[in-house]
Amino acid sequence: MAESSLMDRAAQIAQSVLAGDLRLGARLIRDLDDQTKLAELVLTQLWPHTGRAFLIGVTGNPGAGKSTVVDSLIAYYRKAGKRVGVVAIDPSSPFSGGAILGDRIRMQRHALDEGVFIRSLASRGHLGGLSRSTGEIVAVLDAMGFDIVIIETVGVGQGEVDVVALADTKVVVTVPGLGDEVQAIKAGILEIADVLAVNKADREGADRTVRDLLTMLELRHIEPSQNPDAPSSEVEIIRTVAVRGEGIAELAAAIARHQEQTAHLAAGRRARRARRELRDALLGRCAQLVDGLLSQHADLVDRVQRRQVDPYSVSEQLLTELFRGTGA
Amino acid sequence: MAESSLMDRAAQIAQSVLAGDLRLGARLIRDLDDQTKLAELVLTQLWPHTGRAFLIGVTGNPGAGKSTVVDSLIAYYRKAGKRVGVVAIDPSSPFSGGAILGDRIRMQRHALDEGVFIRSLASRGHLGGLSRSTGEIVAVLDAMGFDIVIIETVGVGQGEVDVVALADTKVVVTVPGLGDEVQAIKAGILEIADVLAVNKADREGADRTVRDLLTMLELRHIEPSQNPDAPSSEVEIIRTVAVRGEGIAELAAAIARHQEQTAHLAAGRRARRARRELRDALLGRCAQLVDGLLSQHADLVDRVQRRQVDPYSVSEQLLTELFRGTGA
Repeated sequence: MAESSLMDRAAQIAQSVLAGDLRLGARLIRDLDDQTKLAELVLTQLWPHTGRAFLIGVTGNPGAGKSTVVDSLIAYYRKAGKRVGVVAIDPSSPFSGGAILGDRIRMQRHALDEGVFIRSLASRGHLGGLSRSTGEIVAVLDAMGFDIVIIETVGVGQGEVDVVALADTKVVVTVPGLGDEVQAIKAGILEIADVLAVNKADREGADRTVRDLLTMLELRHIEPSQNPDAPSSEVEIIRTVAVRGEGIAELAAAIARHQEQTAHLAAGRRARRARRELRDALLGRCAQLVDGLLSQHADLVDRVQRRQVDPYSVSEQLLTELFRGTGA
Repeated sequence: MAESSLMDRAAQIAQSVLAGDLRLGARLIRDLDDQTKLAELVLTQLWPHTGRAFLIGVTGNPGAGKSTVVDSLIAYYRKAGKRVGVVAIDPSSPFSGGAILGDRIRMQRHALDEGVFIRSLASRGHLGGLSRSTGEIVAVLDAMGFDIVIIETVGVGQGEVDVVALADTKVVVTVPGLGDEVQAIKAGILEIADVLAVNKADREGADRTVRDLLTMLELRHIEPSQNPDAPSSEVEIIRTVAVRGEGIAELAAAIARHQEQTAHLAAGRRARRARRELRDALLGRCAQLVDGLLSQHADLVDRVQRRQVDPYSVSEQLLTELFRGTGA
């Protein structure tokens, strides 16, 4: 009975969220973070209404001005009458869970605009947590009817790159005058770029950066199996000075061109995102079960810690207990 | 019978690795990466011989010169007669799996030294893969009898921070003259620092950086539950010019002081690492099972992708199939 009234409440919340209730949407996202049963039921109801938003991933080096680029893109899309949701993943403290305040404050100019919805996500420290939460928040924003959802993340770190890799169009933001080691990392994330933005392009060295990027793009080698979604055409390089809004219309146009040119791949991208969402849900549930198992077997954990037994055999043993003989 | 001969081979390999056979050690690490059954059996045998190495985590901003600091520390410890193993985690491409060549080349000066063993680990793209592999490689180096194991990783990204957070002494390397956003990230990783190194301290702005760090340290707030291992004493700030070896003896001395001051916490750290190793082994095995499940149920995945069913209900359904009613 409690179960069925929970279902009813979930259905009501889902309906309001689908109707665009921002306050309930924000609350749902908070509840998802706390993994409440109610929030999970709501998500179940929202799923059929997802898969419509256009996802833009924005990544790049720390200091490249990603937030300012995102901020300007929001303003641009709003003028075009589009509703924009943003998920910003903070690479800041895993301990305090704190956000980079400056970034958030900068985005506050959209705070009173009902057509903009920004959520920061601090990394939570549990394996797979990052991508799981991101996928769920994107699903909520998608169901809420935002035309465009922007995922902003720093371009270093496996989890962070994974999160952005499934967007429809991936924008990598870079900046003139970074050191060598940073350039090397940039070379790493270059491979996921559909559009490149050279921000702070009024700085000295911008021409050189564009030339370097062109060279790197020529050398770029993408295995089709690794990026089935690689743009067939050239990757465009757009110069921006996001803080003054310069080059943002051009950036948006390049994103639109990529969207158009890869329209035939959009269904495949949506399918991969759905598969990923399923996998993340499974892994998230497994992590809960594993943590439960570990607290139930403090004795075994203790013996591993004393080096009396090894963690690999114990893990097999615990899984055998958990699984119905599925080869574990 | 095949099983028992595999066990025999594993025992032989384990014995040679314990005796310090570098070639077999290198091969074991490669095999672990490929998740071969033999490698896992060897690891099982090595476990009782782990927990002796002193683990130093080195992290910091891209461009701070972490590799050079590590390189100089290796040289320092070698002169002191200690054997040093290094696990370097590359934040480079998740797609190509490529390494930052420069870093590796720089470390080649130790290539002929049997007392130094360096392994690069490219991120593999599967959830939890990063920390799982790192823990296993550390276990191998530990069992091989390296006195000191250094884990070097870029200080951005949840997985990367997690990996370094369990070291005995965490060194955060920074550098004068980074931009604002980068400083903010530094504030994030500052919380895990036991010792701070200001590298390239001959650069303009070094005094200012030290002052800023002192201020940040004063403001630093650590929840005991989040960092049970926080140093009771002040965090030392050491100036280095690693490329010339300057300040490295001082850095090593600060690390030694931290080791000494927190000696009573070392057992707790080892215990947490062992628990983490067990959890990672469990999650790694779960990920294998989940992937198997997903390929067996292409039909369900397809229905999720078509939005006919939602991933959250399907995940419960699949887990019920997998688990023996453990609440799934």
